[in-house]
Amino acid sequence: MSESVMSDMALEAGKLDAADELAPLRDRFVLDDVVYLDGNSLGALPAHVPDRVADVVRRQWGELRIRSWDESGWWTAPERIGDRIAPLVGAAPGQIVVGDSTSVNVFKALVAAVRMADADRSEILVDATTFPTDGYIAESAARLTGRTLRPVTPAQVPGALSTRTAAVLLNHVDYRTGRLHDLPGLTAASHAVGALAVWDLCHSAGALPVGLDEHGVDLAVGCTYKYLNGGPGSPAYLYVRQEHQPRFDSPLPGWNSHAEPFGMSPSYTPAPGAPRGRVGTPDILSMLALEAALEVWDGVPVPAVRAKSLALTDFFLRCVRAYTEPGRVESVTPERHEERGSQVALRCADAGEVMKRLIDRGVVGDFRHPDILRFGFTPLYVGFADAERAARILAEELA
Amino acid sequence: MSESVMSDMALEAGKLDAADELAPLRDRFVLDDVVYLDGNSLGALPAHVPDRVADVVRRQWGELRIRSWDESGWWTAPERIGDRIAPLVGAAPGQIVVGDSTSVNVFKALVAAVRMADADRSEILVDATTFPTDGYIAESAARLTGRTLRPVTPAQVPGALSTRTAAVLLNHVDYRTGRLHDLPGLTAASHAVGALAVWDLCHSAGALPVGLDEHGVDLAVGCTYKYLNGGPGSPAYLYVRQEHQPRFDSPLPGWNSHAEPFGMSPSYTPAPGAPRGRVGTPDILSMLALEAALEVWDGVPVPAVRAKSLALTDFFLRCVRAYTEPGRVESVTPERHEERGSQVALRCADAGEVMKRLIDRGVVGDFRHPDILRFGFTPLYVGFADAERAARILAEELA
Repeated sequence: MSESVMSDMALEAGKLDAADELAPLRDRFVLDDVVYLDGNSLGALPAHVPDRVADVVRRQWGELRIRSWDESGWWTAPERIGDRIAPLVGAAPGQIVVGDSTSVNVFKALVAAVRMADADRSEILVDATTFPTDGYIAESAARLTGRTLRPVTPAQVPGALSTRTAAVLLNHVDYRTGRLHDLPGLTAASHAVGALAVWDLCHSAGALPVGLDEHGVDLAVGCTYKYLNGGPGSPAYLYVRQEHQPRFDSPLPGWNSHAEPFGMSPSYTPAPGAPRGRVGTPDILSMLALEAALEVWDGVPVPAVRAKSLALTDFFLRCVRAYTEPGRVESVTPERHEERGSQVALRCADAGEVMKRLIDRGVVGDFRHPDILRFGFTPLYVGFADAERAARILAEELA
Repeated sequence: MSESVMSDMALEAGKLDAADELAPLRDRFVLDDVVYLDGNSLGALPAHVPDRVADVVRRQWGELRIRSWDESGWWTAPERIGDRIAPLVGAAPGQIVVGDSTSVNVFKALVAAVRMADADRSEILVDATTFPTDGYIAESAARLTGRTLRPVTPAQVPGALSTRTAAVLLNHVDYRTGRLHDLPGLTAASHAVGALAVWDLCHSAGALPVGLDEHGVDLAVGCTYKYLNGGPGSPAYLYVRQEHQPRFDSPLPGWNSHAEPFGMSPSYTPAPGAPRGRVGTPDILSMLALEAALEVWDGVPVPAVRAKSLALTDFFLRCVRAYTEPGRVESVTPERHEERGSQVALRCADAGEVMKRLIDRGVVGDFRHPDILRFGFTPLYVGFADAERAARILAEELA
């Protein structure tokens, strides 16, 4: 790599940052001089969250104690925060509840989907390339509902769908390669054979428009600690399309999902609407940290986030190509925008060692077994100069 | 009620408080002049927790970010905190994991128990008087495993047990009446017919010795936000007896319970030991608040807590009888110590209204539909003068 190329790219980065209308959003986060490209694993801390959490702990819990279930709005937090997430994933209000982990929500969604499908449908299709937990949970859902689990690649889904298919569980963006799957097309294909489509939005929500309502998605789940910046292990969410809610038959019918939770009835009557997806007592500290964190989205249009995300990953890939010896790394992230999420995954044999050195030098991505360097681009707080610097240091470490 | 009786009881309360070796523990909590008798619903805030939570948010999340999964011990928190709870419930280390809600853990425990039992056992027994969520979840577990759910009172359990019984789900202390059930006896009776015993410890852990290991309990669950003071909706825990762990077959096999979570294998191999009970990414903010909260137990012997609990509930009942017109309220909490948890439940027709007035006057208990006044006595921070004052104000409001 020549120094002049590098200074050209650095100059371009400066111009792109200067023209970036989302650049001021970075001030809404606590950041230092590290280039943080791991927001697709754990989002950075929004600057106002610590004070809000302190208020929840000291005043709401410490002073109001039990009264906070009503007075501080604890009880209704799962559906209130669900409505806060809804516009980010293209959902009208009243269809999302927050709570439990993504894995637990995959279980609720998939068992409920099978129960909504015709009883004689014997198969569940699952993305064989998915984040493993979805596959493990799908296996359990299949076992408990007496269905057969059939792992296929997303590309094989159209050919695998049949009148035997009860439900299809897919990831919107592949956690490893960053490939964006065709949510509208695969949902429509599922519906064409009478199957339900369940989507995992962990790696897409907060990075690109999802359009759950528009594309007719039946059920969806997602985590909130990546592009939604909710904090480590913050509660996940469950979307149940409004028209399906009356038939949503949860395998985890905890008291929080009862039509009259404080009636303490020995018989179960499910609540109407989104709260039917609740289970037990919600995890208030984590949940209200998430609620505060979501305020960084005020006034932020998701299409602008998507445009910047693509510009960032394009620019990073250009820098990597300009700076790195050909063949030293291979991008496994699709070139085509319509197939790309908000991360770049580079394959190289010594990825584990390379990532350690990058982190030591202040470029934080992550390593995915066995040979993937993963760089997440969070448009709310990552800029073009960050991308250029990351590519430069990467090239030095690869040299 | 005469003033002289009241002054006698107040005097006695003062003496009891002066002689109470646990009295100084009150300083470990944030309390005001309210008489807080709702620690059996939401424990009070331990004084050192806010600073610890602030450190988790500001430094561990805000500064170390993703590095905290290793460097701040986030990844191992579920089993580490499980080991911190273990001595409080009579369990040796390596058998408890923290995470998810109580309802979700009831599901894991009950499905796993059915799978451990002989395949031809067709029935699950459940406490018909239990906190409703256990019954709802047990119904779901029965439905998904093809078993029949048979609700019985704990007193009917010995007669209902048979070689058809796969598992029995019971509450250690009844949430409504405060009745303590015979955990050693009912566990032994279950074992005598070859069934597994699953116990819900929500209303006993932190209030009395449980003796999970000693009494041969197979599986147990419990919440941490009552007598363990973990904070609103803090994560629950799951106990799997060591000898059962190799056969613990979770219906929620999330990636956190995999033998090699970061191997990202498409096939599931369960971890050995307690982590097999994990599911998805743990809820770190709530979990580390709980970990901090558990430090109030340092040096506190559970038998001393139990002794004070019984003395407090005895004294409160005496005060209520001395101060209140006979027949105005009826205690539904057993007199016999071996049948009493750490709360007093009083029945009166206008309980809902009475509790509102008590709370207005700074005596915080709670109301349970349709006619129960519930007063929880948390020995770590409730004293005898509190009990006397609560009984006095109650008598005034009932008069």
